[in-house]
Amino acid sequence: MEINFKVLKKDKDCQARVGKLVTNHGEVNTPIFMPVGTNAAVKAMSPEELLSLGTEIILANTYHLYLRPGQEIIKLGGGLHKFMHWSKPILTDSGGYQIYSLGAIRKISEEGVKFQSHFDGSYHMFAPELSTNLQLSFGSDVIMVLDECPGYPCSYDAANQALERTTRWAKRSQKAYLEEEKENKGILFGIVQGSTYEDLRKKSIEQLKELEFSGYAIGGLSVGEPKSVIYEVLSFTAPFLPLNKPRYLMGVGFPEDILEAVEQGVDMFDCVIPTRHARTGTVFTRHGPLVVRNAKYAKDFLPLDEECHCYACQNYSRAYIRHLINVGEILGYRLNTLHNLHFILKFLQDIRSSIMEDRFLEFKKSFLTQYDPNAR
Amino acid sequence: MEINFKVLKKDKDCQARVGKLVTNHGEVNTPIFMPVGTNAAVKAMSPEELLSLGTEIILANTYHLYLRPGQEIIKLGGGLHKFMHWSKPILTDSGGYQIYSLGAIRKISEEGVKFQSHFDGSYHMFAPELSTNLQLSFGSDVIMVLDECPGYPCSYDAANQALERTTRWAKRSQKAYLEEEKENKGILFGIVQGSTYEDLRKKSIEQLKELEFSGYAIGGLSVGEPKSVIYEVLSFTAPFLPLNKPRYLMGVGFPEDILEAVEQGVDMFDCVIPTRHARTGTVFTRHGPLVVRNAKYAKDFLPLDEECHCYACQNYSRAYIRHLINVGEILGYRLNTLHNLHFILKFLQDIRSSIMEDRFLEFKKSFLTQYDPNAR
Repeated sequence: MEINFKVLKKDKDCQARVGKLVTNHGEVNTPIFMPVGTNAAVKAMSPEELLSLGTEIILANTYHLYLRPGQEIIKLGGGLHKFMHWSKPILTDSGGYQIYSLGAIRKISEEGVKFQSHFDGSYHMFAPELSTNLQLSFGSDVIMVLDECPGYPCSYDAANQALERTTRWAKRSQKAYLEEEKENKGILFGIVQGSTYEDLRKKSIEQLKELEFSGYAIGGLSVGEPKSVIYEVLSFTAPFLPLNKPRYLMGVGFPEDILEAVEQGVDMFDCVIPTRHARTGTVFTRHGPLVVRNAKYAKDFLPLDEECHCYACQNYSRAYIRHLINVGEILGYRLNTLHNLHFILKFLQDIRSSIMEDRFLEFKKSFLTQYDPNAR
Repeated sequence: MEINFKVLKKDKDCQARVGKLVTNHGEVNTPIFMPVGTNAAVKAMSPEELLSLGTEIILANTYHLYLRPGQEIIKLGGGLHKFMHWSKPILTDSGGYQIYSLGAIRKISEEGVKFQSHFDGSYHMFAPELSTNLQLSFGSDVIMVLDECPGYPCSYDAANQALERTTRWAKRSQKAYLEEEKENKGILFGIVQGSTYEDLRKKSIEQLKELEFSGYAIGGLSVGEPKSVIYEVLSFTAPFLPLNKPRYLMGVGFPEDILEAVEQGVDMFDCVIPTRHARTGTVFTRHGPLVVRNAKYAKDFLPLDEECHCYACQNYSRAYIRHLINVGEILGYRLNTLHNLHFILKFLQDIRSSIMEDRFLEFKKSFLTQYDPNAR
């Protein structure tokens, strides 16, 4: 089996590690943050802007792309990369999470998930084979198996059933993946479920490890649980994942959460928070989130973050950006998005440097001394 | 009096002319199109993108800026240019048109216009002095007098009264302008009213000419009248405006209308159409408007305009842009806006070249042979 991931350096004081993921569209340095491009576009950004920010890989949503514009149009357009004018790697999720969070009506059976489209009410059936084939036809670099993602809280029995089904679906996803004869297929990741139960998480990992995926995602988090639960689940999940495969914590993206996860040896992150918060007027700074749409910034002519080197901070004031958000100007969404992605991508870059120099825990402590997650 | 405008070349076969307008923030080549930046931002664009498109001057709306963010914040921010990070010229309108088109409730008296804000219902009074002082404090390069802009159709008596009041207000605007001791003031333009009545338009021009403005705008058009009326009014208004002063046709911006107006000797244009149409999914091409959000473009992988050199046409297909507009992605609004502004700015550039070479009428004919204003 081809080696797609290599750990280049492990921090001497914790599980944090720097690695390299090799894909059909280039290499990705881990730990990495993947901006979310739900509809084949990272909201408010152009591909060139993403590149200028140092984006190495983006995530797109199979569920959304399946509904609009649909598989045929992406295929006719030459695949997702060409369709959206993005030449670096793309990870696509399987649609599992979206069906659970967006589907107006859904019915889960062994075959798959029957659901109603969240925008036009039409009925659809997502099966592991369909999800895998969609992702293959998009030309994704990293393909996720279809999983059953229960909410929070979740009973032990329900969690157990969901993880067992997730494993069966993972096998079917893998089978569909292996049957596809296309060359240069993306690599396939399994998804660990098991909710908040230690033994279930371990069981899920054991079952998936037998299938030998190219990477393992920790699913079923970021579904409404408190942060302490995320950290606890990470502590009894991450240590049991294969050391030589990339580990992807799905849907988690606050700086403080990323630090905890990196410490536990997580390599990949995605989250809508940097882009979504940007559009509702919250930006990330060294000192914590800053709600720039708040009235207290109306006459504040400082940049969003005085030490930031992004285009927004070099050229615009909080007062101007607040005004733009206040009147609904697209430029406001653009500037905040640019800033937030710059913040989070630079943050991951700093994390990688600190690991290379065996000082990740020091970096974490120093960052958290300045950063107040509850600032406004 | 300082000379701010020079006609460099008149086409030998019609009134079309190329000129240069000198402002505090640089020179502007006429005939020129001014993208509209209502709220101190051209919708969906960054200043750098506007520059890359060849934008030489933008328009901002005094009415909107007065309400949000308000005069104080723009002053504290160092004036409009600095506040919005735009270093080229800005023309501000007087607020007259917006009060008539947006004000929920308005009451016009000799003093000015009392109106209710279109977004929070608060009451305000716009007088010629306030409008002028606002524009002076913004640091506008071209300042417009407050006018009374009647709708269409308009009775002779109402049109007459509105033009007489417009002249009285023009005097008051000019007085307020002259009393301001600030150095490097922007230049002041008068606004011709008179609705669709030839003798009233002439009377308005005679009255305004006595005040010796730096430029003359043709107001009261683009208020719902058919195109033929615009052309008719132009034909009996433009010839009576001073030859050595810039002529600005307010709110008109369809290519076919610009051609008619340039032929009559108009020098300046502004219109929300290129930017607004972009956001609702209509783009301008050599062959006419193209409603890219229409289903017929769902599988069309050609660029918006095959011969266009803009960033959108060089990198994206109609199918992708249609998808973006369809799902409400900001990138779709950006690409269409970029394309439409590129189209209209290049169009004006081509017009200037044709005038320099005494072939404007030929250019007009050739353009209209290809361009169908009713295409979709």
